[in-house]
Amino acid sequence: MFKAAVLGAGYMGSAITYPLSENNIKVNLWGTWLDDEIIRSSLAGWHPKLKKPLPETVTPMYSGMLAEAVKDVDIIFIAVLSDGFVNVFNMLLDAIEKKDYYFFKLTKGIVQYDNKIVRATQAAQDMFEKKFPGADFKWATIGGPVKANELSDKIPTASIYALNKSMPKDMPFGFSANFYPVTVTDDIPGVEVSSSFKNVYSIAVGICDGLYKALREGMYHNFSAFVFNQAMMEMSKIAVAAGGSADTVFGLAGIGDFYVASLSGRNTRYGELVGKGENPKDSFNKMFAAGEVAEGYYALKLGVEWIKSLGMDLSRDLPLLDYLYRIVFLSKEPMQTLMDFVRDMKTRFKSVL
Amino acid sequence: MFKAAVLGAGYMGSAITYPLSENNIKVNLWGTWLDDEIIRSSLAGWHPKLKKPLPETVTPMYSGMLAEAVKDVDIIFIAVLSDGFVNVFNMLLDAIEKKDYYFFKLTKGIVQYDNKIVRATQAAQDMFEKKFPGADFKWATIGGPVKANELSDKIPTASIYALNKSMPKDMPFGFSANFYPVTVTDDIPGVEVSSSFKNVYSIAVGICDGLYKALREGMYHNFSAFVFNQAMMEMSKIAVAAGGSADTVFGLAGIGDFYVASLSGRNTRYGELVGKGENPKDSFNKMFAAGEVAEGYYALKLGVEWIKSLGMDLSRDLPLLDYLYRIVFLSKEPMQTLMDFVRDMKTRFKSVL
Repeated sequence: MFKAAVLGAGYMGSAITYPLSENNIKVNLWGTWLDDEIIRSSLAGWHPKLKKPLPETVTPMYSGMLAEAVKDVDIIFIAVLSDGFVNVFNMLLDAIEKKDYYFFKLTKGIVQYDNKIVRATQAAQDMFEKKFPGADFKWATIGGPVKANELSDKIPTASIYALNKSMPKDMPFGFSANFYPVTVTDDIPGVEVSSSFKNVYSIAVGICDGLYKALREGMYHNFSAFVFNQAMMEMSKIAVAAGGSADTVFGLAGIGDFYVASLSGRNTRYGELVGKGENPKDSFNKMFAAGEVAEGYYALKLGVEWIKSLGMDLSRDLPLLDYLYRIVFLSKEPMQTLMDFVRDMKTRFKSVL
Repeated sequence: MFKAAVLGAGYMGSAITYPLSENNIKVNLWGTWLDDEIIRSSLAGWHPKLKKPLPETVTPMYSGMLAEAVKDVDIIFIAVLSDGFVNVFNMLLDAIEKKDYYFFKLTKGIVQYDNKIVRATQAAQDMFEKKFPGADFKWATIGGPVKANELSDKIPTASIYALNKSMPKDMPFGFSANFYPVTVTDDIPGVEVSSSFKNVYSIAVGICDGLYKALREGMYHNFSAFVFNQAMMEMSKIAVAAGGSADTVFGLAGIGDFYVASLSGRNTRYGELVGKGENPKDSFNKMFAAGEVAEGYYALKLGVEWIKSLGMDLSRDLPLLDYLYRIVFLSKEPMQTLMDFVRDMKTRFKSVL
């Protein structure tokens, strides 16, 4: 029977312990230096974010105990915020001796690494191969529509695992449960683009919602559906430019996850504030101070840089992302800017003639 | 300058007159025998469904005036309910003499015709060619995320026109406006499958919402996102089986329209009632009596029959549709049946091994 460590005791890291427990996999849940209060409370029987006790098979561990947490395990899940990913993965590599772990990444998307912007998997692989030259890097990136509190409530939740060549194909099915059907793909870039950019584009959906909530009664959907669709088109282009497949974006990792994010995520709520006319930087900071990190804000900034390194041109290839960037980082007025986007699309739509 | 007639003075037929008016196209808005009160009120200056006056370029006409409505026009939009489509198109063919109209269909999906179930375009083409043998049938089917009241409010609304070979490619761009960007495709089956089945699958999304609303506080999205994604997969399969393209489903006609329908349509509301445990037939009838027709209910019944004629097998190819049918028409308990669906998917997900 496998044993696992989960790094990061926030929402997602803690939630994944529920299907693992269902499969009788014992888990060391390691909290970062930001998670000390979560670990203290969890040891006392109550996870303060998920608002329930952790499964009995879970051992919460403080940030000082990384080496112990990974000592006797076979599987390591990494579930820290994108921001801390490179740092924590480095700490992990320092803490481990043997090199035949199975790594599973829940952290989203793209990161800064070695003065470049890269996908998190690229950063991890580079760090791993420097530490263990010639060793086998067994790695998977996890995507799909998963709100952590629902997974821990055992609400049916589908997930997609993108495996590299060294990861055995049947491995993720050992984590599946009747409330957690799991599927696999070999398209790591497609899943990482989806999980990162759905947060970015959810801001655009939120802005559409906010624009009209500020102006009138009732809910408006035509414009946000147009934006949702355009976001799907652009995400599929980015995935292909990153070496992935459009099919992945048009599946659980993309459509599914973007649907959840648009309906209820922090990024959509952030976008709503911007759409209602609040200052983009101030509202990000205000949410941040309240413990609500709109990750799409960072991902937009990093993503726009990263896209250039893929040889894409923002205004030519990704008009929605272009206009979104103008609103969030160049202080352009949201309504006027989105109307410019619509006129731009009207012209592009005619290009078939 | 073109003149147009719109057949059907309900939500969608009336809303399309706003972009037409923006393009200085005069419109005769013909109401069916069910629309007499709408026409009376519109003549007095107030459209009772859209809750605003119609554009000044619109002439409302009673059901007895079909021949006058289409007499001097070049373009005919058909916007009656699917139910009445064959009947009204037959009346139209009886009322016209010349045969060089441009036809645009806003009516959704699939219909009963000549003791068969076919796409509405197939029925119309057959009727047209019988009446005018050898004549050129200039036809387009309209799709995309369009809630009528928002279009009439000039909220940005994107639309996709699927044109047959005889319809000039630039024609629909004559209807586009800054609040109504229009794009075109030649995939009529793809658009018709999307516009019909998004109503069907919205019922499934609604059931997921209803299940949990009945059980707990808060909104749950993981399961409905899983179902949304599976619906997209199944719609793309149906489109391909019908001779269309998956790309169309993964575009404005599919993703876009399904997104709107899932967020706010009558079919989702109907599904919610079923998910909360109400009797499927009774709740359909109750909504119907209140003037709220959940078109997906009919489309599910017809659609399941139609799919068999395409050579698809429901339980093999379209599991979500299969389980949905069991709930709505075979009185299966929603929660138990959807949990069976999840377990079924869990097994299918493993089939890659």
